[in-house]
Amino acid sequence: MSDIEPLVLDENRYFDPEPSVRKTARELYEDVKELPIVSPHGHVDPAVFVENKPFSDPAEVLVVPDHYVFRMLYSQGVDLDALGIPKHDGTRAETDGRKIWRLFAEHFHLFAGTPTGAWLNHELYELFGVREKLNAESAARIYDRIQEKLDSPEYLPRALYERFNIEVLTTTDGAADTLANHEKIRDDSWAGRIIPCFRPDSVIDIASKGWKKSIRALEKASGVEITSYRRFISAIQEQRKRFKSMGAVSTDQGVMVPFAHGMNNSEAEGIFLRALKGKDTTRDAALFTAHMLMEMARMSAQDGLVMQIHPGSFRNHNRLVFEKYGPDVGCDIPITTEYTRSLRELLEKYGNSTRFKLILFTLDESSYSRELAPLAGHYPALKLGPAWWFLDSIEGMTRYREMVTETAGIYNTVGFNDDTRAFPSIPARHDMSRRVDSNYLAGLVARHIIDMSDARRMSRALAYDLVKESYNLG
Amino acid sequence: MSDIEPLVLDENRYFDPEPSVRKTARELYEDVKELPIVSPHGHVDPAVFVENKPFSDPAEVLVVPDHYVFRMLYSQGVDLDALGIPKHDGTRAETDGRKIWRLFAEHFHLFAGTPTGAWLNHELYELFGVREKLNAESAARIYDRIQEKLDSPEYLPRALYERFNIEVLTTTDGAADTLANHEKIRDDSWAGRIIPCFRPDSVIDIASKGWKKSIRALEKASGVEITSYRRFISAIQEQRKRFKSMGAVSTDQGVMVPFAHGMNNSEAEGIFLRALKGKDTTRDAALFTAHMLMEMARMSAQDGLVMQIHPGSFRNHNRLVFEKYGPDVGCDIPITTEYTRSLRELLEKYGNSTRFKLILFTLDESSYSRELAPLAGHYPALKLGPAWWFLDSIEGMTRYREMVTETAGIYNTVGFNDDTRAFPSIPARHDMSRRVDSNYLAGLVARHIIDMSDARRMSRALAYDLVKESYNLG
Amino acid sequence: MSDIEPLVLDENRYFDPEPSVRKTARELYEDVKELPIVSPHGHVDPAVFVENKPFSDPAEVLVVPDHYVFRMLYSQGVDLDALGIPKHDGTRAETDGRKIWRLFAEHFHLFAGTPTGAWLNHELYELFGVREKLNAESAARIYDRIQEKLDSPEYLPRALYERFNIEVLTTTDGAADTLANHEKIRDDSWAGRIIPCFRPDSVIDIASKGWKKSIRALEKASGVEITSYRRFISAIQEQRKRFKSMGAVSTDQGVMVPFAHGMNNSEAEGIFLRALKGKDTTRDAALFTAHMLMEMARMSAQDGLVMQIHPGSFRNHNRLVFEKYGPDVGCDIPITTEYTRSLRELLEKYGNSTRFKLILFTLDESSYSRELAPLAGHYPALKLGPAWWFLDSIEGMTRYREMVTETAGIYNTVGFNDDTRAFPSIPARHDMSRRVDSNYLAGLVARHIIDMSDARRMSRALAYDLVKESYNLG
Repeated sequence: MSDIEPLVLDENRYFDPEPSVRKTARELYEDVKELPIVSPHGHVDPAVFVENKPFSDPAEVLVVPDHYVFRMLYSQGVDLDALGIPKHDGTRAETDGRKIWRLFAEHFHLFAGTPTGAWLNHELYELFGVREKLNAESAARIYDRIQEKLDSPEYLPRALYERFNIEVLTTTDGAADTLANHEKIRDDSWAGRIIPCFRPDSVIDIASKGWKKSIRALEKASGVEITSYRRFISAIQEQRKRFKSMGAVSTDQGVMVPFAHGMNNSEAEGIFLRALKGKDTTRDAALFTAHMLMEMARMSAQDGLVMQIHPGSFRNHNRLVFEKYGPDVGCDIPITTEYTRSLRELLEKYGNSTRFKLILFTLDESSYSRELAPLAGHYPALKLGPAWWFLDSIEGMTRYREMVTETAGIYNTVGFNDDTRAFPSIPARHDMSRRVDSNYLAGLVARHIIDMSDARRMSRALAYDLVKESYNLG
Repeated sequence: MSDIEPLVLDENRYFDPEPSVRKTARELYEDVKELPIVSPHGHVDPAVFVENKPFSDPAEVLVVPDHYVFRMLYSQGVDLDALGIPKHDGTRAETDGRKIWRLFAEHFHLFAGTPTGAWLNHELYELFGVREKLNAESAARIYDRIQEKLDSPEYLPRALYERFNIEVLTTTDGAADTLANHEKIRDDSWAGRIIPCFRPDSVIDIASKGWKKSIRALEKASGVEITSYRRFISAIQEQRKRFKSMGAVSTDQGVMVPFAHGMNNSEAEGIFLRALKGKDTTRDAALFTAHMLMEMARMSAQDGLVMQIHPGSFRNHNRLVFEKYGPDVGCDIPITTEYTRSLRELLEKYGNSTRFKLILFTLDESSYSRELAPLAGHYPALKLGPAWWFLDSIEGMTRYREMVTETAGIYNTVGFNDDTRAFPSIPARHDMSRRVDSNYLAGLVARHIIDMSDARRMSRALAYDLVKESYNLG
Repeated sequence: MSDIEPLVLDENRYFDPEPSVRKTARELYEDVKELPIVSPHGHVDPAVFVENKPFSDPAEVLVVPDHYVFRMLYSQGVDLDALGIPKHDGTRAETDGRKIWRLFAEHFHLFAGTPTGAWLNHELYELFGVREKLNAESAARIYDRIQEKLDSPEYLPRALYERFNIEVLTTTDGAADTLANHEKIRDDSWAGRIIPCFRPDSVIDIASKGWKKSIRALEKASGVEITSYRRFISAIQEQRKRFKSMGAVSTDQGVMVPFAHGMNNSEAEGIFLRALKGKDTTRDAALFTAHMLMEMARMSAQDGLVMQIHPGSFRNHNRLVFEKYGPDVGCDIPITTEYTRSLRELLEKYGNSTRFKLILFTLDESSYSRELAPLAGHYPALKLGPAWWFLDSIEGMTRYREMVTETAGIYNTVGFNDDTRAFPSIPARHDMSRRVDSNYLAGLVARHIIDMSDARRMSRALAYDLVKESYNLG
């Protein structure tokens, strides 16, 4: 058919077109492309590996779970119901994978020039063997091809985990999680290493609607009756122990602002008791979050869990969408984020430790060269997480390296995080990151800022060594 | 004469020097360079096309009306009087075009590396056939050459409009404008499409000195006696109708901060009545502006006029210059601009509509990747205006594409705006934009992020399709 | 030995790899590389040139005085004591240069890709003739080689000054400095031009601990008994006279925020008297600093000293390090900085002067295109200082040119500042700056934005002419 447009994954993709840079980039990339994937931060559901069931259909693999995908479609007027996005109550207006796929295919041109487009093409080509571009015309053929693959045992989650050459995969788990799935995976004979990360946001944010419910869940999980701030802290500590025992190496906090400020115990107790009675104020909530950043740092300095902070996302910005579909459906929007003043108290107290580790992320690029690289280039405890979310793209990751490296070097950074819910996109994301870093280093070589022996060591560090070391995964 | 330095417009100008990128950029550019110019936002005076009189002299075409030009000269100590800039009262200290031109020519080297320099060279070369660089030595010869052209019928405004291949040109017109000039153009046999844009700033900013006068003018234009907020809104609506009837497709608001927040009618009425009595406070003015952003969105959702917001310019920063020469003389300075929180109420209420359209601009590049691209990549109603004002330059437009596309794609952007008062610079500005976008796409092709068939479709979209669709000019 | 890795300084380093750009960059660079160094802002101790003693050992030349160096080592867990960093009381835990050097060499890979690494390699290669890369294995050999050089008369400070082809070197000196060292240099037969710069921070910041002591010192130096604000101003003016008489052409203020706002004399007097009694408030201190920015501008408009402002550094962020080692040890961290509103009063009053000169610096890159370039592209008095501190790097300086030039041109910028305490690094820093600017201009030539005759004139301006003109050093 004359309408078929070939899908090609060029082996030099994402590399600078200047021949000498491209050649060096390729050479560096070839050295790291087969290294195992270490994924220290992400959102894949561990149940996937417990159940190890086939993915149901192409739409459920590539469209429905990926808010990067459907936020773009929504922005161009595509109805979320028609895409089968589950509503708050779990129901879906559209469950016909073929219809959803068709709608997606019709709009696939929207992703031209975006990392989502690049990842999807990588998945179609590498994982599903597709060799034609996705569009309205090819939609059905491609759907059938993917479905056929999904139905085969080689495409079960555990098989994919192995095929993807994943060394360790970190999930993100609520403070009240019992880690039953992690336990099942551990107790199983399967060799995959799926470890949890302790995320206490829901029990720390006393202003959130579900806070009391989360506290009750934490109570149940930890076995500590939470009648006071003191006992709340005990419950947190119990759960950190449980997480550690299941292999956890890290915690994560998603705060609106990264302001850290400790209170004395009686102040903290006062706020906590007011919260239990539903009488807390907005100011209470902000102070309690600030205090809990200090507390989490204190605990990390004791138990050695690496502390991560992901600040600066205004969650659920679009009330209409939130009320209908719930959280994590593409309407979280970044805000300006301040680190220098906000984190001073925490860094003064714990930042000079060489044992405590704090990994900072940002959605506000203006802070890379202004605050984050200078902070990471001074405090022993502080490392910079990679370009995050809207920034984990070819240009975004390149700007990150250009704005961070000259002040902090590469050894105050921690390798790559894929941070994804979309399990099959993991290799595509790591491959892009390895290509972009190889290309960045090749640019330094071409300009004689570093030589090839530096570049080889740095390339391996960025692809593999730094992430293992930073997250104590060695 | 040995002093003559040739002026050359290289046909590959602004393209990446790497041969493969340059070749692709050129190829993409050749496909779009002859497309008609759609200019959906600008500041050319419609009277120019009513009167269709010859431009008086080179200085009056290229220097006096262009604050991009004389702000640079002023920054290097050139007196605005000596450049013939009209004072507040309309008088000019210098009216000898030849003297002004000479002064301009002596300082032309200041523009090396600036878009203004590139536009001026384009105009000199393409429009006036100049083939030597402008400097003190060549000033007089070039002046004579341009003057000769200006005196010929081919250089009358309407002839230039046609020669420039303009399909539609939008002016910007005050809320109280009667659009008499637009009416004359419409009633004339001339085929040019000159349409107004409704800009209500002067009647919304109750804190501005001329507010009462503006209200009286609005009263007169609309035929609505403005004795209350309710009647003020009626007057606005009458004028929107008038603008629509004269072909308008859009409104525009130039606010310091884009904070949108609705009040109930009695609160709005209270502020409005205080303003009529001259008893409004600073807080009143801020709240009224925030409220009127909501109102303008509401009206746009009804009448279909595309809403534009140009925030973040601190107008008339230099009091001395403002008092002597009035507004729009080069002393407006950007400030940081916040969108995520500021526009939430408006986007919650109208942002999910696929009928309402809001086009946002910024002078604060740090908001591109942090706020604007994420917002536009989610809300159906929201589109991003192109790189604006200090940013509509080669590097500025390139950064815009690099920081916006990966999150929002190109289909949530709206093509190019020349936004100029300087009519003869329009082709130069669109040509630069088409070249920069072609070059950007060529870079994606060279790195195999998109292929040539994607690039051709995207190139046409950026040069022509998106602007027509976004501004309902189809 | 097989372990020796050669150290090479490629003659095309830092230039774009694209052959046509590289060739042009090289050509432009060759024209300016031998121009004398004009260093209008820095922190070399003038005593170095009075005493003209040999530098004691490699660690004392390259490690101990350079906080760019040891901040990076500290960030990776290297103890400042082990590096021989002097404590607050002047003592050093480690004084064995060989041990310090070894520790430095073991960690030298941390600097790969940083300007510090590039400067150090330049110094090792060009100044000390080292031809192998610094690492643990080569440390001792390189130490010996440098030591041998340092012991020879060709490496005495004055000899180096001449060898570096320095035309003028500006130091930074406290308000209470008697300039005894500058006087000795002047009265000596030596031809070196070492001039002071008046930095009054310590006597202006009434909130700082040492303020009273600084006032007493100012009293002594100026011969004015400081019993009132009026007499404080007299003392400042006396010292400005003294500085001018010793060749000073500039002042410098390092403020947290660049907010300028004048008070009347009685308000200023009130705050000053409260400060003398130790009864000033936080608000007093902020207002007094804002007022003194206005006063320093007023004085500069009178005596012609160029005013510099270096805002936006949160000094001594790390209390633990500050308390142990004092200021200037690598724990100053940038914050967001606002100029448009903050400097309005100052610019309104003095910004239209063509005699007064204000040079602004920033550590907040987001202000380049948003505020600083628009301000400098309008106000005659205002010029932009070069990329500063964390930004005086290859990528940092490139971004500076890209974000500033299109709005302000190059003629509203002031050439390069090395701003260093590390005297032997001066040629390396100027060389990097000249290479980066040559490369930037070559990129403009390759894209036909300017031609070679423009580029040659601009290249010389950036390397030499602008700094002399801007700082009145002609």
